[in-house]
Amino acid sequence: MSDNGTPSSKPDFDARFQETLEDLLVWRRDVRRFRPDPVPKEDIKELLRMTALSPSVGNAQPWRFVLVNDAKRRKGVIEIFEDANADALKDYDGERAETYASLKLSGLRDAPVHLAVYCDEGTELGLGLGRRTMPEMLAYSVVGAVTTLWLAARAHGIGLGWVSILNPAKVDAILDVPKDWKLIGYLCLGYPVEEHTDPELERHGWQPRVDVSSFILER
Amino acid sequence: MSDNGTPSSKPDFDARFQETLEDLLVWRRDVRRFRPDPVPKEDIKELLRMTALSPSVGNAQPWRFVLVNDAKRRKGVIEIFEDANADALKDYDGERAETYASLKLSGLRDAPVHLAVYCDEGTELGLGLGRRTMPEMLAYSVVGAVTTLWLAARAHGIGLGWVSILNPAKVDAILDVPKDWKLIGYLCLGYPVEEHTDPELERHGWQPRVDVSSFILER
Repeated sequence: MSDNGTPSSKPDFDARFQETLEDLLVWRRDVRRFRPDPVPKEDIKELLRMTALSPSVGNAQPWRFVLVNDAKRRKGVIEIFEDANADALKDYDGERAETYASLKLSGLRDAPVHLAVYCDEGTELGLGLGRRTMPEMLAYSVVGAVTTLWLAARAHGIGLGWVSILNPAKVDAILDVPKDWKLIGYLCLGYPVEEHTDPELERHGWQPRVDVSSFILER
Repeated sequence: MSDNGTPSSKPDFDARFQETLEDLLVWRRDVRRFRPDPVPKEDIKELLRMTALSPSVGNAQPWRFVLVNDAKRRKGVIEIFEDANADALKDYDGERAETYASLKLSGLRDAPVHLAVYCDEGTELGLGLGRRTMPEMLAYSVVGAVTTLWLAARAHGIGLGWVSILNPAKVDAILDVPKDWKLIGYLCLGYPVEEHTDPELERHGWQPRVDVSSFILER
């Protein structure tokens, strides 16, 4: 890379890189068990700089990142999760309920970094291009950025877990964000305790993976 | 990689890989200019296999892929795009309208591969886990998969363009998909004519990139 962040010539994505990229996809996990070691803030900012290389509709760059450092706010988010998780458990009976109750569904208590990712639904960047008939493209652009962050983090030894068992309105209130912002994901980041190639929910008997070929149609 | 698709030991994501991954993020583009050369169907299936390594809420794997091969259906989608694009142009005046009209916003006519990506909102996989308070997580899982596909494709020399200037209900009708399926993205894939590090909309004066540091808050 040159100093301005642009490679001086077209890179050669060779077989070795392609294989390691697949290893990255295989080893990327939703991490819920974190070591308490802090992640340097500069490393998080570097990851967010890479995240912003993600595509966005109309180049609107609607991603907004909220680093949640305050212990009281973090505690509030943990309570929102615990309430929502207790409610969710009521949807299941018998053995399913037992399995659900045994799952570890967030690493909020241990993760050194809490990062709330928002979509600025009121942004004027991009001037509306590409989202007239599909306004959800703005939120989707932020989801793509989270995916980019997930892979970049894992490539640098940092695990990410996406917590969706939350009431977004309550999180918004705790984080005191602008009214036009929509919560896309509340993320935990940190160094993982363990590494696996299989999803946690497969390993613990909730939902196995299905061969993708059954999800492909031709028309 | 071993034969069952699982690396035999934890990979070492070294500095060289990390740099090349950043090159991949830098060179990934929304491609709208394709060479007519066909992409072997086996290569597309390989890319979709890698795509399915993406995370999904509750491991629900709600991604559904529709390869649109039929010339009449493709023509129908192109007409939907052209109608929606003509409507969108009416939102702009003066110089903005001129710029909009000059932009190339899809490669639908040239791309050898049309791939509609859907979310199966009716799937029972995952048993609802993780999407009780944020049901949009199902669609977001599919968006993450598209992002994974985008990067995997580019690493293999294949460009991807996401077309969102479409009326989804009309696309659904043309593709004759199940009622519970929600269109997430209509994608063009093929070998790109040109390669750039800057977004097309930046290069053509629509919307420049903004430094991500202005999008980071602390709370």
